[in-house]
Amino acid sequence: MLGSHRIVSNESANVEPVEMQGRKSLESFFNPRSVAIVGASSTPRKLGTLVLQNMRLQSFNGDIYPVNPKLTHIGALKCYRRVSELPCIPDLSVILIPAGSVVEALREHASKGIKNVIVMSAGFKEMGADGERLQNELQSVARENRIRIIGPNCLGIYDNFSRLDTFFIPRSLIQRPHYGGVSLASQSGSFVAHLMDLASFEHLGISRVINYGNKIDINESDALNYFAEDPKTKVVGIYLEGVTEGRQFLRSAEYCASKKPVVVLKTGKHESIANALTSHTGAIAGSYTSYKAAFRKSGLIEVESELEFIDTCKAIVSLPAARGRRVLIVGHAGGLGLTVADLCISEGLEIPETKKDLAESLKEGTLPYASVRNPIDLTASGSDGSAEFVLERALVERDFADIGIYLALWGLPQSSERIGEILSGIIKRSGKPVVVATLEGKKCVDKRSVFESKGIPVFFSLERAVKVAKHLNESYRGTLDD
Amino acid sequence: MLGSHRIVSNESANVEPVEMQGRKSLESFFNPRSVAIVGASSTPRKLGTLVLQNMRLQSFNGDIYPVNPKLTHIGALKCYRRVSELPCIPDLSVILIPAGSVVEALREHASKGIKNVIVMSAGFKEMGADGERLQNELQSVARENRIRIIGPNCLGIYDNFSRLDTFFIPRSLIQRPHYGGVSLASQSGSFVAHLMDLASFEHLGISRVINYGNKIDINESDALNYFAEDPKTKVVGIYLEGVTEGRQFLRSAEYCASKKPVVVLKTGKHESIANALTSHTGAIAGSYTSYKAAFRKSGLIEVESELEFIDTCKAIVSLPAARGRRVLIVGHAGGLGLTVADLCISEGLEIPETKKDLAESLKEGTLPYASVRNPIDLTASGSDGSAEFVLERALVERDFADIGIYLALWGLPQSSERIGEILSGIIKRSGKPVVVATLEGKKCVDKRSVFESKGIPVFFSLERAVKVAKHLNESYRGTLDD
Repeated sequence: MLGSHRIVSNESANVEPVEMQGRKSLESFFNPRSVAIVGASSTPRKLGTLVLQNMRLQSFNGDIYPVNPKLTHIGALKCYRRVSELPCIPDLSVILIPAGSVVEALREHASKGIKNVIVMSAGFKEMGADGERLQNELQSVARENRIRIIGPNCLGIYDNFSRLDTFFIPRSLIQRPHYGGVSLASQSGSFVAHLMDLASFEHLGISRVINYGNKIDINESDALNYFAEDPKTKVVGIYLEGVTEGRQFLRSAEYCASKKPVVVLKTGKHESIANALTSHTGAIAGSYTSYKAAFRKSGLIEVESELEFIDTCKAIVSLPAARGRRVLIVGHAGGLGLTVADLCISEGLEIPETKKDLAESLKEGTLPYASVRNPIDLTASGSDGSAEFVLERALVERDFADIGIYLALWGLPQSSERIGEILSGIIKRSGKPVVVATLEGKKCVDKRSVFESKGIPVFFSLERAVKVAKHLNESYRGTLDD
Repeated sequence: MLGSHRIVSNESANVEPVEMQGRKSLESFFNPRSVAIVGASSTPRKLGTLVLQNMRLQSFNGDIYPVNPKLTHIGALKCYRRVSELPCIPDLSVILIPAGSVVEALREHASKGIKNVIVMSAGFKEMGADGERLQNELQSVARENRIRIIGPNCLGIYDNFSRLDTFFIPRSLIQRPHYGGVSLASQSGSFVAHLMDLASFEHLGISRVINYGNKIDINESDALNYFAEDPKTKVVGIYLEGVTEGRQFLRSAEYCASKKPVVVLKTGKHESIANALTSHTGAIAGSYTSYKAAFRKSGLIEVESELEFIDTCKAIVSLPAARGRRVLIVGHAGGLGLTVADLCISEGLEIPETKKDLAESLKEGTLPYASVRNPIDLTASGSDGSAEFVLERALVERDFADIGIYLALWGLPQSSERIGEILSGIIKRSGKPVVVATLEGKKCVDKRSVFESKGIPVFFSLERAVKVAKHLNESYRGTLDD
C-alpha cells in the first residue's frame, strides 16, 4: 500500500513543499523491492554476514543481491563481483566495506544508476580530520550524482512492514521488537539499537526505525517528514544529538507534530560535554536553550532518559491523550497513593480535591473505612468493584479529572483479573487515559498481561507512571485526529 | 548479643539523653524472648492466624503465647483465655482484637505487668472523631501504666535477627527480604510492606523493620534513636508522613545521621493533599519547606519515590561514599554515555573534561577509534581490559573523578564476566564507588549476579544509576567511620 509513491528522484524533493518531500523521498529506503549488499560475506561474525543473516531472519521479501569480488555464492544467493555486474538497478544499496573504499564504490553506484544508498561503514568525520576529508568527498560524489545517502557510520533501517533489517547487530545482542505503531529515528546507532531491545523487553510495538549516523544527506528532518505522512506510524520517537539545519528541523518538527505525537530525547544538553558529543557522531550540539524552545514551539514532547522515552511512546500509542492536568488516583494503599500524588504535583499535574457531594457519592460504593479523598485509598480489602464504582462516577459520569492513575497491587483479597476489563471500559466510556502504576515485584510482573491483553500498558514504578501521565497531557492537541 | 540491654522501663528512657534512650527502650520490641498474641486464631485468613503463621515461617525462636477466650490450643501451642492467665510476663504483647475491645485489654495487660505492646488493630484516629476518642483513651491507659506502645493501626515489627514477624500480611502477597544491613521505619504499613517486597525483588538485604501507624507513643524519633545504636543497622531508611514532635525528630535525625546514613522519603509534601494525609494515619503534615530544611540540617538523604528509596539504600550500604561530585562515565555506547552525562549534570553532578595528558594516557589502553573524552566510549568492540585500564588510570592512579559510572551492556564481542572482578578491584583500590548502570532487558537482568556476587549493585536504568550516584555523594560525611 506504500508502493504507489515508490522512487521519486532527488530533484523533485528539493522543490516540493516540506510536507510532500518526506514520504516519497525515503520510500525506497523503507520499502525497497530489491537491495544490494556491498560487502556481503559468509565469514562468521563479519558485518556483511550479519546483515545478510538479519535480512533473512526478518523475512525480507524483496530481492537481495550480495556484492563481494571474492565470492560467487553466499548460501543459495548468487554473489556479484561489483555493482556494475548486477542484473538490475536495485532500489537500495547497503555499503559495508572499509571507509577508504567507499568513495570509489559510490562512483560505481552512480555509473550503475543506483539512487538510494545506506553507507554503514565507520571511519569518517567521527574519526577526526582525515575522516572528515573522506566524508566531504563522499558527500560531493553523492551530490554530483543525485544519490541519496543514509549515513555514513550508521545502522540504516529496520522495518516491521517491509521486513527490511540492515542492522548488523545480532539478535542475540539486540532483540527485535514486535510490530506496532511507534517509529524511531536516531543519530546514534547504539542508542536506537538498545531502545529496540528495551522496546522488545517492555512489550512496545515498533513500526520502523532509521539511524542516519553522520547524516551527510538524509537527517532528522527527512525522517520526521516521512513519518508524518506514513500511515503505519502513529507516534514518532526521535533521539537527537544535534540537528543539521535548524530552520529545516523546526519546519519538519512542526509539521510532523501537527500530524501525530512526537517524543524527543536530546543529549549533549550541557556545554561541558559538547566536546564528547563532537567525537561521537561528528555532530555540533548548539545551545540547549534554543532546542528546548524549538521543541516547545513545535509541540514535541521532551523526555530525559531511555526508559522515559519508551514509556512515553508506549503510553501515547496505547491511551487517549489527556485534555488537562487533573489526576484522580485510585489505589489500595494510602502511603503509595500519597507518593503518587506528590510526584504528580512535582511534575506539574494537579490533584483536585474530592468536594463534599462527590465524596458522599463515592462513599456509596466503597468500604466504610476507605478514604474517598483524592488520592483515594480503597484499602487492602477494597474490591475491584469499588475501583470501578469510583472511576465510573469520577471520570465517566462526572468530569472530576482528566487522567486516572490506578495503583495495581496483586494478591489483595478482593483483587481479580477482572480489573483489566474494568479499566478498559472506563477508558472507552470516559475517553480519558487510565495509567496503571504498579511496583516491581514478581506478582505484578506476572500479572501484566491482565492489562496488556486489553491494550493498557503497565508501568513498574510510581515515578514512571506519573511521568507518562504528564506526557499524556502534553500529547493533547485539542483534537482527536488520529 | 543485643541481650545485655534487655528491658528498660519507660521512666529511665524519659530522663536519659537522646542517644541513650533509643536502643534500650525498643529492645524488647525488636528482640523479645516471649511474645503474647492477643487475638490469635486458627481460622483461615484471620489476622490472628496469619500473624501466628508468619512467626512460624520466620522461625521466631522465643516463646509464643496465643491468647483467645474461645480456644484451648492452636496447633501444638496452648492457648490462654486472657493475658491474666499467662504463665509469665511476656516481653512483648501483640494485640489484634477489634478496636472497641483494645482499651479493656490494655488494662488487663497493665494488671499483668506487661510493659511492651504492639496494637495492630485499626479503627482509631484514622477513622474520625469516635476513633480519636478511643485512641486518646488508649493513650491515657498506656501512660498511666507506663506501658510502651507501637501503633495502633500498624503492622509492628519484622526482624531478620530476632526472627520476629508481627506483620499479618501473607508471604504470598509480600515476600520477606533476606538478611542485610538496611533497617526501615515507616508510619504507613502498606508502604513499608511493599518496600519489603520490592527489597526482596531487588536483592536488597534488610535487618529490621518497624511500622508504628498512628504512633500514640513510639514514633519515628524512637526508631531513629534505636537504629542509631543498633550494630546490625548500617543504613536507615525512613518513610515519613508527618512527625509527632519537631524538635525531638530533629535531635534524633541529627544523632542517627551522625552515626550512619539515613535515607528519607516524605509524603504529603503539598498542601493540596494534606487532607488526604490526615485521613490516612491521622497525621498532620506540617510545611514541607520546614521538613526539607530539617532534613538538610540533619544530614538526611532525601528521595522522591519508592524505587529511588530502595536503590539509594542499596547503593549506600554496598558502595563507598563519594567524596565529591565529579563523575567519570565509561561505557561501550556513545549515545547512552551522553544521556548519562546529561542526567548527571541535571542532578547537580559534574562531568570533568579529560584534559590532554590524561586523554593521551588513556589512548594507550583503548582502541584507536574509542573516544577518551568523558563520557568515555570504548565502543562496542572495546574490551573489559580497556575498561579496567581507563578506570585504573583515572580513578586509582589519578584523582580524575570521585565516582565512576560503568555502563554494562551484555552480548558485546569483548565483554566477559571478568568485569565483576575488575570493578570490585577498582572500588577497593580507589576507595571510590563505581555505579553499574545497565538497561532493562533479558541479557542484563540475567547477568546481574556477575556484579552482585562481588557485592556491587546493578541499576536497571540510566536515571536510577545517576540518582544513586548523587546520593552516594550526599552520604559522604567527611569521615569513613562505619
